[in-house]
Amino acid sequence: MPAKVAINGYGTVGKRLADAVAAQDDMEIVGVTKTRPTFEARTAVARGYPLYTAKAHQAAFREVGIEPEGTLEDLLGEADVVLDGTPKGSGYRPIYDEARVKAVWQGGEKHALTGLSFNANVNYKAALGANRLRVPSCNTTGLIRTLYPLQSRFGVENVNAVMVRRAADPGDTTRGPINAIVPELRVPSHHGPDVRSVLEGLPIQTIALKVPTTMMHVHAVTVDLEGEATTEEVLEVWRGAPRLRFVRGAEGITSTAQIMELARDLQRPRSDLYEIVVWEEGVHVQNHTLYYFQAVHQEADVIPENVDAIRAMLEMESEKDRSIRKTDRALGIPTSD
Amino acid sequence: MPAKVAINGYGTVGKRLADAVAAQDDMEIVGVTKTRPTFEARTAVARGYPLYTAKAHQAAFREVGIEPEGTLEDLLGEADVVLDGTPKGSGYRPIYDEARVKAVWQGGEKHALTGLSFNANVNYKAALGANRLRVPSCNTTGLIRTLYPLQSRFGVENVNAVMVRRAADPGDTTRGPINAIVPELRVPSHHGPDVRSVLEGLPIQTIALKVPTTMMHVHAVTVDLEGEATTEEVLEVWRGAPRLRFVRGAEGITSTAQIMELARDLQRPRSDLYEIVVWEEGVHVQNHTLYYFQAVHQEADVIPENVDAIRAMLEMESEKDRSIRKTDRALGIPTSD
Amino acid sequence: MPAKVAINGYGTVGKRLADAVAAQDDMEIVGVTKTRPTFEARTAVARGYPLYTAKAHQAAFREVGIEPEGTLEDLLGEADVVLDGTPKGSGYRPIYDEARVKAVWQGGEKHALTGLSFNANVNYKAALGANRLRVPSCNTTGLIRTLYPLQSRFGVENVNAVMVRRAADPGDTTRGPINAIVPELRVPSHHGPDVRSVLEGLPIQTIALKVPTTMMHVHAVTVDLEGEATTEEVLEVWRGAPRLRFVRGAEGITSTAQIMELARDLQRPRSDLYEIVVWEEGVHVQNHTLYYFQAVHQEADVIPENVDAIRAMLEMESEKDRSIRKTDRALGIPTSD
Amino acid sequence: MPAKVAINGYGTVGKRLADAVAAQDDMEIVGVTKTRPTFEARTAVARGYPLYTAKAHQAAFREVGIEPEGTLEDLLGEADVVLDGTPKGSGYRPIYDEARVKAVWQGGEKHALTGLSFNANVNYKAALGANRLRVPSCNTTGLIRTLYPLQSRFGVENVNAVMVRRAADPGDTTRGPINAIVPELRVPSHHGPDVRSVLEGLPIQTIALKVPTTMMHVHAVTVDLEGEATTEEVLEVWRGAPRLRFVRGAEGITSTAQIMELARDLQRPRSDLYEIVVWEEGVHVQNHTLYYFQAVHQEADVIPENVDAIRAMLEMESEKDRSIRKTDRALGIPTSD
Repeated sequence: MPAKVAINGYGTVGKRLADAVAAQDDMEIVGVTKTRPTFEARTAVARGYPLYTAKAHQAAFREVGIEPEGTLEDLLGEADVVLDGTPKGSGYRPIYDEARVKAVWQGGEKHALTGLSFNANVNYKAALGANRLRVPSCNTTGLIRTLYPLQSRFGVENVNAVMVRRAADPGDTTRGPINAIVPELRVPSHHGPDVRSVLEGLPIQTIALKVPTTMMHVHAVTVDLEGEATTEEVLEVWRGAPRLRFVRGAEGITSTAQIMELARDLQRPRSDLYEIVVWEEGVHVQNHTLYYFQAVHQEADVIPENVDAIRAMLEMESEKDRSIRKTDRALGIPTSD
Repeated sequence: MPAKVAINGYGTVGKRLADAVAAQDDMEIVGVTKTRPTFEARTAVARGYPLYTAKAHQAAFREVGIEPEGTLEDLLGEADVVLDGTPKGSGYRPIYDEARVKAVWQGGEKHALTGLSFNANVNYKAALGANRLRVPSCNTTGLIRTLYPLQSRFGVENVNAVMVRRAADPGDTTRGPINAIVPELRVPSHHGPDVRSVLEGLPIQTIALKVPTTMMHVHAVTVDLEGEATTEEVLEVWRGAPRLRFVRGAEGITSTAQIMELARDLQRPRSDLYEIVVWEEGVHVQNHTLYYFQAVHQEADVIPENVDAIRAMLEMESEKDRSIRKTDRALGIPTSD
Repeated sequence: MPAKVAINGYGTVGKRLADAVAAQDDMEIVGVTKTRPTFEARTAVARGYPLYTAKAHQAAFREVGIEPEGTLEDLLGEADVVLDGTPKGSGYRPIYDEARVKAVWQGGEKHALTGLSFNANVNYKAALGANRLRVPSCNTTGLIRTLYPLQSRFGVENVNAVMVRRAADPGDTTRGPINAIVPELRVPSHHGPDVRSVLEGLPIQTIALKVPTTMMHVHAVTVDLEGEATTEEVLEVWRGAPRLRFVRGAEGITSTAQIMELARDLQRPRSDLYEIVVWEEGVHVQNHTLYYFQAVHQEADVIPENVDAIRAMLEMESEKDRSIRKTDRALGIPTSD
Repeated sequence: MPAKVAINGYGTVGKRLADAVAAQDDMEIVGVTKTRPTFEARTAVARGYPLYTAKAHQAAFREVGIEPEGTLEDLLGEADVVLDGTPKGSGYRPIYDEARVKAVWQGGEKHALTGLSFNANVNYKAALGANRLRVPSCNTTGLIRTLYPLQSRFGVENVNAVMVRRAADPGDTTRGPINAIVPELRVPSHHGPDVRSVLEGLPIQTIALKVPTTMMHVHAVTVDLEGEATTEEVLEVWRGAPRLRFVRGAEGITSTAQIMELARDLQRPRSDLYEIVVWEEGVHVQNHTLYYFQAVHQEADVIPENVDAIRAMLEMESEKDRSIRKTDRALGIPTSD
């Protein structure tokens, strides 16, 4: 019988989680919650996802012809696990606890909320049977994807990552800036410790800035490797790692814009790119120091990690490789070997 | 036997034309041309479209492991019709003539090149058996879609359309402006006469500006109607017309950004929106004068018109309604009734 | 003795008002108010403007070494007139009334607050001795500047103005959109009635959109003239009107960006442009219908109107032409003849 | 007698060089060159700078009522030194050599063209009497300004600088991107070696990206110091160094936008900021490693260096401190002590 999955909060992340779960043959969506009857609520209905909302909001839905199935509490009663896609600090943990449902939070929440931060390739075993975990933010997940294989293969002495962040998601037109660069003045930024919530003890400092673009973060990463390595060896290690993708400036992919164009050409749902993208020509090893650029599709990279988290928590699959491969096939992500 | 279609120029428009043709059960792609082995060339190969290129470019493709099938001339020999997706002024007409292949050009070319400018809903019959025609630009097609039903139903005394244009396509990172509004100082702009290439004699003046955005043009249109009309009657007429879509600010669609987000949610290929989008709350009739805003997805709206053009030119279908319905079903566009 | 002027609110508009008033030989700044000790507060101090703030805020200023002179009430006690540069709806009228000080509001406030909306060229006489008035918004002032001379000389049958607005001021990095066009769905927009608060009875409809730029609004205006006119006659009428400036695409001014570059070259304070800017090549009369583009520096165009308002309210000068010329000379605006 | 200075190329840099030179009491502008009669040519005329242009261009100027004074060769005959503000690779060196005039190039040119790259604070003495030198680019000059004092005082083991660059100047509306981040895939970038053209042997790696903004580059710099240092000691060293300015997020300066707003408030010509700007709260020393953010006004920071270069080359002043102070006073830059 497929795992019964609830999505609390059907917004930028929640709607992607719902579709990714629905695409798995061992999972099903028992319902999603939404507070207002927006066009996204209509999307949920069109997809056939049962829609739940608090009693106070139900009238607003009925006015536009959408009949809610019940409340969040009703929904949790149907579910084995809930994926929390609500804004950070929403504080649903007591409600999930009360309903005795397993729960997955996103990176807006702090590590302390669950005590377990998850990346499928790093600590899948630790999540087997867990009741609560957190998938770190898009940026943190992005760093973990490329750094863990380096750490495993070469050892890492030090990491310096400058993160040039998109300032707003494509569908968010309220936030700026329109014409400015905004440094995060707290240096190092909080992303370093967040990486260490999964990669314990990794010596990493991060620096962040926001820029006026809506699609993809770019990281300029400098890694002091412990062992010897060549540029080609680094690329080879990454080619064996999950959920990475390589692009080339020589083929016309000179910025985040062409990466997103590629994602459109790949016919992915919502033109999403689940993989972390590395520019081949930007990878460069010089005297034990590795330089690279990577791009992170902020709306999408954490989605497959959530799917694997479900499989681990419900002990549907004990081996990380098998879960990753299953998830990736269902989502159209090329498997690494 | 399906119609054999060639695509000359596999870029922003060409790749969409190819996929839309391939989605029709009465057409097939016999090949596409490309001059450089970019990531888009790889997309063509991944889709299984035979790739053709001039002799001078073939070595560059072979170097990256792509074996061209032949030249444009070879491709034209296989085709019943060619869709020209090359940059404006490329001048391929003599080559198509020499190959005795029917040809469809896009809006970058002038009306005089073909003597026939096409919109499926307006002049499908005129295109039956034609050897050459032109589908007008995305902006012109957008105006025709909403104006023709008004003209037919109410009569139109005068149209004033201000077109706020996106400055560059999403995958084009070379063009600006980054922070400016650029008026087209030639007033009225060339779009008015272009509309008249299809809607003969329509009294329309157009004014154009470019702004720093990559997705969708917005038109602010003022129409002096000949007859009486209410806002609701206008909406009703449009609801019966093909390839229009209505959105509502009240459901959170307050800008072009949320329209594109909706297109992503609709799971359209490349997150494209073939329909012209009208904001319901922005439609307003006041003393015979109609005001409305419409948004045009510049990469996509002309695509279904090209498909219908093929059917008319090859006389595969004699009735516009049947062709439009067939095209729209294959592309996932809701039919109007 | 110079007029004693207070500025309540030393922000985007307030700081410009202060400098413009200080530049007049018949006025002086008796003080400005500020609620937080930002870099702009330091600017006020550096300029020598006495700084006032509410008791509750005074400690915060002292902490960074700025000693406030007193409260708003103290300041009003020193002033003949106060220019209100506070956010719209701040509701200071009872306080100004209590202090029996004359007051000028900006366009964020409604006409009803004062019953008198002011433009120096249109209704200077009506403001002689007035206790309260409002200078309409930057957009409204911009339309009045070009429409009033047309109305006076040719008569105006109808105006249709599409206003493509900058979405945020240069120093405001919180507001978006970053990549979208945002129509104002209430059509016609509120700017038409606002123009009529000064130009009574003018038949004008306005339509507004917001775009991702920080500098200047652009208006695409269509005017049905009552009388005969040529393009050259229109230009001639405008050349005799105050606070207009002409630019030419042929000299490289093809967008708002080069206008702002010109303003920098003119060595204006803060690179401001007080004049409404009209593109010469964009002015075009065709059968009684006039088309033109104008650009409005949203931070600056209302500044000289405020200065004239003071002179009228305090009856320092009874003739509009003399006040306008005096203001303009002090601000470096070329006089029209 | 004042030094006679010619400006070849009156564009973004050239017009600023002209005004800065004209502001010195020991220098005068003998003329500027311009190839087309744009609005900037009119600025030159309005400023009273004699305007020169090649014979082939003179007619175009006369047509718009500007009478050129002669050709570049004529101008060089009048000059002691020429500042080259032409596009990179323009190749004027033989012409300057032929005219036996001293010459200063900008950072678009390579070090090898002159063999001497100049920064007033670093190698003023080396430029005494020189015939040719180059002022490095805005980014390179920015790095030198903060790194040289650190190197002198603490010693520097390693520098890692990530440069987030504005993609186009404010007046340039042709270049994009509008919505993308563009990494410079050649890693490390060319800026590191360029810094070493002045600071010989400095161990520095640079990484560059372009983002859709028009004002200011931001550098995220990580410096491994040789000696012990505290955050306060670093700030103190910088406070004693020329042409640096400190800003604080706590005072509302949270991005490049508010820095440029500050520059407007400072009433600088063209709202320019000659100083390199460091955010106080972003300076952070942790175990011998210093992190900081700095912002560079790309149009302006090299201007005072050019003025000092003239004084050194013509041996008008032998001490760097005296030249720097003289230049800075004339330009309104606060002196460091």
